[in-house]
Amino acid sequence: MSKQAHPFVEPVELKGHIIDSLLLPKVLDLITEFGGSYRIDKIHVGQTRSDPSSVVIAVEAASEELLGKILAQIADHGAVPVHARDCELAEADIAGAFPENFYSSTNQHTQVRLGGHWITVADQEMDCGICVDSERGTARCVAMSDVRIGQKFVVGHRGVKVVPIDRPGEGESFGFMSSAVSTEKPKGVTVRQIAADLHRIRAKGGRVLLVGGPGIVHTGSGPYLCELIRRGYIQVLFAGNALATHDIEQSIYGTSLGVHLGRGTSVEAGHEHHLRAINTVRRAGSIARAVDLGIIRSGIMYECVQHGVRYVLCGSIRDDGPLPDVVTDALASQERMRDEIRGGRNGQGGVDFCLMIATTLHSIAVGNLLPAWVKVVCVDINPSTVIKLNDRGSFQTVGLVTDVEPFLRVLVSEVDALEADYAHESG
Amino acid sequence: MSKQAHPFVEPVELKGHIIDSLLLPKVLDLITEFGGSYRIDKIHVGQTRSDPSSVVIAVEAASEELLGKILAQIADHGAVPVHARDCELAEADIAGAFPENFYSSTNQHTQVRLGGHWITVADQEMDCGICVDSERGTARCVAMSDVRIGQKFVVGHRGVKVVPIDRPGEGESFGFMSSAVSTEKPKGVTVRQIAADLHRIRAKGGRVLLVGGPGIVHTGSGPYLCELIRRGYIQVLFAGNALATHDIEQSIYGTSLGVHLGRGTSVEAGHEHHLRAINTVRRAGSIARAVDLGIIRSGIMYECVQHGVRYVLCGSIRDDGPLPDVVTDALASQERMRDEIRGGRNGQGGVDFCLMIATTLHSIAVGNLLPAWVKVVCVDINPSTVIKLNDRGSFQTVGLVTDVEPFLRVLVSEVDALEADYAHESG
Amino acid sequence: MSKQAHPFVEPVELKGHIIDSLLLPKVLDLITEFGGSYRIDKIHVGQTRSDPSSVVIAVEAASEELLGKILAQIADHGAVPVHARDCELAEADIAGAFPENFYSSTNQHTQVRLGGHWITVADQEMDCGICVDSERGTARCVAMSDVRIGQKFVVGHRGVKVVPIDRPGEGESFGFMSSAVSTEKPKGVTVRQIAADLHRIRAKGGRVLLVGGPGIVHTGSGPYLCELIRRGYIQVLFAGNALATHDIEQSIYGTSLGVHLGRGTSVEAGHEHHLRAINTVRRAGSIARAVDLGIIRSGIMYECVQHGVRYVLCGSIRDDGPLPDVVTDALASQERMRDEIRGGRNGQGGVDFCLMIATTLHSIAVGNLLPAWVKVVCVDINPSTVIKLNDRGSFQTVGLVTDVEPFLRVLVSEVDALEADYAHESG
Amino acid sequence: MSKQAHPFVEPVELKGHIIDSLLLPKVLDLITEFGGSYRIDKIHVGQTRSDPSSVVIAVEAASEELLGKILAQIADHGAVPVHARDCELAEADIAGAFPENFYSSTNQHTQVRLGGHWITVADQEMDCGICVDSERGTARCVAMSDVRIGQKFVVGHRGVKVVPIDRPGEGESFGFMSSAVSTEKPKGVTVRQIAADLHRIRAKGGRVLLVGGPGIVHTGSGPYLCELIRRGYIQVLFAGNALATHDIEQSIYGTSLGVHLGRGTSVEAGHEHHLRAINTVRRAGSIARAVDLGIIRSGIMYECVQHGVRYVLCGSIRDDGPLPDVVTDALASQERMRDEIRGGRNGQGGVDFCLMIATTLHSIAVGNLLPAWVKVVCVDINPSTVIKLNDRGSFQTVGLVTDVEPFLRVLVSEVDALEADYAHESG
Repeated sequence: MSKQAHPFVEPVELKGHIIDSLLLPKVLDLITEFGGSYRIDKIHVGQTRSDPSSVVIAVEAASEELLGKILAQIADHGAVPVHARDCELAEADIAGAFPENFYSSTNQHTQVRLGGHWITVADQEMDCGICVDSERGTARCVAMSDVRIGQKFVVGHRGVKVVPIDRPGEGESFGFMSSAVSTEKPKGVTVRQIAADLHRIRAKGGRVLLVGGPGIVHTGSGPYLCELIRRGYIQVLFAGNALATHDIEQSIYGTSLGVHLGRGTSVEAGHEHHLRAINTVRRAGSIARAVDLGIIRSGIMYECVQHGVRYVLCGSIRDDGPLPDVVTDALASQERMRDEIRGGRNGQGGVDFCLMIATTLHSIAVGNLLPAWVKVVCVDINPSTVIKLNDRGSFQTVGLVTDVEPFLRVLVSEVDALEADYAHESG
Repeated sequence: MSKQAHPFVEPVELKGHIIDSLLLPKVLDLITEFGGSYRIDKIHVGQTRSDPSSVVIAVEAASEELLGKILAQIADHGAVPVHARDCELAEADIAGAFPENFYSSTNQHTQVRLGGHWITVADQEMDCGICVDSERGTARCVAMSDVRIGQKFVVGHRGVKVVPIDRPGEGESFGFMSSAVSTEKPKGVTVRQIAADLHRIRAKGGRVLLVGGPGIVHTGSGPYLCELIRRGYIQVLFAGNALATHDIEQSIYGTSLGVHLGRGTSVEAGHEHHLRAINTVRRAGSIARAVDLGIIRSGIMYECVQHGVRYVLCGSIRDDGPLPDVVTDALASQERMRDEIRGGRNGQGGVDFCLMIATTLHSIAVGNLLPAWVKVVCVDINPSTVIKLNDRGSFQTVGLVTDVEPFLRVLVSEVDALEADYAHESG
Repeated sequence: MSKQAHPFVEPVELKGHIIDSLLLPKVLDLITEFGGSYRIDKIHVGQTRSDPSSVVIAVEAASEELLGKILAQIADHGAVPVHARDCELAEADIAGAFPENFYSSTNQHTQVRLGGHWITVADQEMDCGICVDSERGTARCVAMSDVRIGQKFVVGHRGVKVVPIDRPGEGESFGFMSSAVSTEKPKGVTVRQIAADLHRIRAKGGRVLLVGGPGIVHTGSGPYLCELIRRGYIQVLFAGNALATHDIEQSIYGTSLGVHLGRGTSVEAGHEHHLRAINTVRRAGSIARAVDLGIIRSGIMYECVQHGVRYVLCGSIRDDGPLPDVVTDALASQERMRDEIRGGRNGQGGVDFCLMIATTLHSIAVGNLLPAWVKVVCVDINPSTVIKLNDRGSFQTVGLVTDVEPFLRVLVSEVDALEADYAHESG
Repeated sequence: MSKQAHPFVEPVELKGHIIDSLLLPKVLDLITEFGGSYRIDKIHVGQTRSDPSSVVIAVEAASEELLGKILAQIADHGAVPVHARDCELAEADIAGAFPENFYSSTNQHTQVRLGGHWITVADQEMDCGICVDSERGTARCVAMSDVRIGQKFVVGHRGVKVVPIDRPGEGESFGFMSSAVSTEKPKGVTVRQIAADLHRIRAKGGRVLLVGGPGIVHTGSGPYLCELIRRGYIQVLFAGNALATHDIEQSIYGTSLGVHLGRGTSVEAGHEHHLRAINTVRRAGSIARAVDLGIIRSGIMYECVQHGVRYVLCGSIRDDGPLPDVVTDALASQERMRDEIRGGRNGQGGVDFCLMIATTLHSIAVGNLLPAWVKVVCVDINPSTVIKLNDRGSFQTVGLVTDVEPFLRVLVSEVDALEADYAHESG
């Protein structure tokens, strides 16, 4: 097999503070992200902060079309072909619309090549076309709705050079950023990846830790978690008094609470049920004993007891009761969690994957204990929790700002699909 | 038919500033909510703000058990049976747990009746038991974990009187509150109610208005909305340039964008596609023309054109392009929306129901135009939007803090279920 | 002194489900809020839920102008003068603007009185004028920008009747709402009230509890809290390991951290300092001992030790270290907090006022322990914390969605002003 | 002047995917941030994505202490001295506390050098000490509270090597992140920098653009903005109907609204005042005319008119009225804003600095129009706005999640301080 992965190649050049202002990594990332590969042909790295660097990268792609696409992308970050050519122009044929294949501007300083010379574009503004006056040798940004018939616009990316803005001044930091959290991204794909991880870990006999908040029960998502437990996708549960209590309360006061859930009205007596549920389990002695006695007949804690999921319930100062299984001392709780994470002392292996759902306190506590190589997925409707977790700053942490119920619902249906595929392939 | 709905009746008394501190409405609401009914037997309303009021309410229920439950609920708001009896006590038989059926305290001033006298409870704290020293004639709150064997605790609600705290002082307002927005409520029921509304309105030939933001497309929820349109559940769409553009972009650049969506990676070229999509439609002349020409072959706007859903796309200063159908003038946009809401001038009826999804600007703009009797459901992952909408403050506005995708996904499956039920019943 | 507080009186009538749909309390609240008083002249309360009620209220005010203002306000909630008169009309003299003193519409069903008859207004929409066609006997809402010269508009509130929308149907709850939290309210006044409370409580030798999160230190607001402590406004502090650690870290690593704070850059070594600070105090044995040894020479914990502020530091599972003073057991922490709240066992009085700043966990934990009559102010930049606290639902809880630093900064300057006033008055 | 900035130098080595996983830029950034400088002595960049790279960096610092500090920092990112030595150990002398100067662990794979060999640390966890068993040649993480007297711990950073986790697998993106937004950072410094920018731009006769939302008025921050305008710090204002209306309403209905603000109660009639204010200005013809007529006598718009601040009020579909100066067409609004941003056509220079306060819509609209080299500061209590703006992703955008009032209050006091300094220096 040859070293050169792809047949279509174009050398591009990138100059300036390409390492410390992240241009080089960004460009390399884009090439990879769009399906190309690269070879660094020449690199000169400035010795000190004030010395500029330069690099020549051979961009490789499987098709000419893909190569063009990649070149267009990286051009917006200042990477221009070594062999420059003039920009291509087309006349506007319709008022208020650009010609087909128009070049769409960024908000960075831009130059276009006309008659072998690089001309600086005036009125720089993002999402405009670049209107060129060839006679005067000038170019400027024009908004779509301002286009007039007969104006000439740059089409394609050829002969366009973006000059990214400089780094902050001497003595300032680059303000390294840590988190990419968005509520607008398509989340389905991320959930599919999580399902694939769960499936893979189950297949190899690994261990998945679920760290969960009471929102799982409040939002009616308990049944999905129960399903994951029954199917063997969860081996360890870390939670607090609240999750276990609300779950058990729902199991014990099923009917009456069921009615209220069914009516969707606020459950005025809910808080009392909560306290009564705790009292009942305290009278039984432990959650497992209450399951044995038939007091608890369903729910997350029931499934944990039935399927040998190990659980650590950590106490907090806002707990009512608490349940008899709750470890009220914080240091003892940490010790118990460490044992599960590392494995060994509990006669089990360490944790391979960690799913944190709807809890800030527990997520951060567990984040403190986990080694960086355990992949963490943090799901919360509140961006702050996800941001805080992400601030741990490893590539392994994935933040998802979303509601618990749909997340777990979709997760269950994704593992369903995987199991079906797998059965089909095996069958 | 007799006037008295239910056979089990108990007269209760409520005293103090029961109207302006909302105690009376709260108590009446609880009776209704828990399935009972009431008859006001006697009412004395204080003439001025400083005069206390009093009322005797006959609480009615279908069973003795339900009656007891209702009495327990309203007792926490100060409504006590006219015929008071001593509280009932039980001994703690297990350390760290209350006896069965213990009375669970509130954080309000509380009195218990011992030997015919009302005794004030010390150490008042919510979610405790009330421990009574009968010999000394004292009572105090004790936490569950502090219970010692042999202590006597109040059980049931008999002989317990809560004395709700007073209103704010003279000259202060009661701070009337408007919104009940929560991210922890079971949402399934609310979605079911919305589905029922949509189904009912479709059956009677009414008109449903959907006000939507681009998040519908970003989150991959477009197909659910398309499904609702195809089934005839949406008659009018109000949106902005962004929703229509992202939707059309997805239709036109389907494959390549599809690939990216499939890979779940950030779509670096997305913004350009966006601009190119607008340009293409501007070149065609209008959205409907682009559908006719086969340029747009799927998506929300496509379904609107195909199924005669009327749409108003309102412009804003952050628009790129915009699309040729966008009404760029704000007053003209309002006029167009008024016509659809009121009906008549557009040859249609007025709007019966309004579903606002993932848009603050449009939601509030439409909220300004809607009469109070059109039921509004506002769905947003951001509580602020829902709070603002709810501040309109009518009973007709329902706020849901949730993700768009699961909301629409579940809504479609709920209307599915309704249609199946209906087919079954009719069949 | 006569019973009738104010000389100007107008009897108004209110009909419908005025108690359970909260109309009566709302109207009484408005009268009081706007500085009037009332006398209930006649009241008929429907016996059952389906029976309507009615009331005649004598609205009283100190001036005719104020009376008019109050009548205008309550008219929007359906309270109309017993002695109805026709509405008053004025001609539009300028296009696109209403005549002076125009009636501004609500979004509720509205009627205007013309020639002794009540006419229903068409095209109902909020914030419009009501345009009357006297000849045809019709009325409709018209937007400001649509006004044409010569159209007749209702001016003033006379002869306008709002018909509030009905309650939800049988079997539905009224959706009792709990919280009024806004980020747009003028907050200065609220802070002034808190300052007045602190000042009053200090004067009478009362006790103020501050429940604080580490955000107080992170945001650079520590010095303000120190100032409040030094001036004797805080008697008890509840916090966690984080607040105390960050505070002590700032005291111990003052210079180097000071430099970083001064440069505003992210403090990369901050987390290590944090751990070293804990280690240093653990080596000393306790916070008080570290103060005695001169290790801690400034900050919140230093001031607490120096000024006899009692503190309870409660542990949590996310704690590093923790500091030797931290109570790691949750039940023991609750017990320590109870002692301070109730007073007595600690040789002190109970707590009179509670200020919660920037902490969800501790705020809710303390909320669980506090009796309802202790006034609580909860300050957080995150609306969720404030909403949750407010859900306790007593009039005594005030929620403030704001940044910590400005809040404490302004609070200190407000107590400054109060002390100056007081010194002036006494001097 | 010699090329070597600092006398103390230590060569360090960094290996692996140092460019595309951002290790090299991160390390260079840290060196600079901590006040050191660097010289790249040797660099080998892997040609393709799977080839590792390596670099030798000479770290330079002004003092040995600083050099040590920098080396400690960058060691946590895998940069280790070329000339490795064994780690240094110290015995724990107190139970539950580390020895002074203990090495504080990260959550990354770590090795310590013992007798010339690199040993992998077991039980990896952040914020622990590394306990070494020299005889067995083993090392493991131990939490502070678990330390026993006599255990040996690593002190200092010598002989410790962190092995950062690998990049994501082939075909995955590095998930380039864009925004660093935090509510916990010390904000004072950032505000001081903004004040310095304003001061500098005023001195050179530059132009500052303020983009503001109505929150400026709601939060009572109007007077601070007025002060900035009067002092010549603002040359252009972009806003909507809401900001101008609320500001003018406060000016016109000063007394009565003042009373309400003073009482801190909700202003029931506020919305009507709002409409009446608009109507009054519409009757006058324009804001400037209303100022001339003495109708508007204070506030933001008043100061703009009096001090020649150019303003563009852009319309939106949620506007009431609107004010006569509002540009209701979105494209016309964009054109007006472009003219101000670019300068020239308005007889003025372009905009040098942009301060966006409390408005999502206008901030993003203006962000679309601004070239990347105009520094932007975006202030909002809502993280989403700041995140969206930051997503523009240039170093020039600074996001501040904070309340408007304190921000403007502090900004005014910071320019005060700067003016005083300047007067002092000049005097």
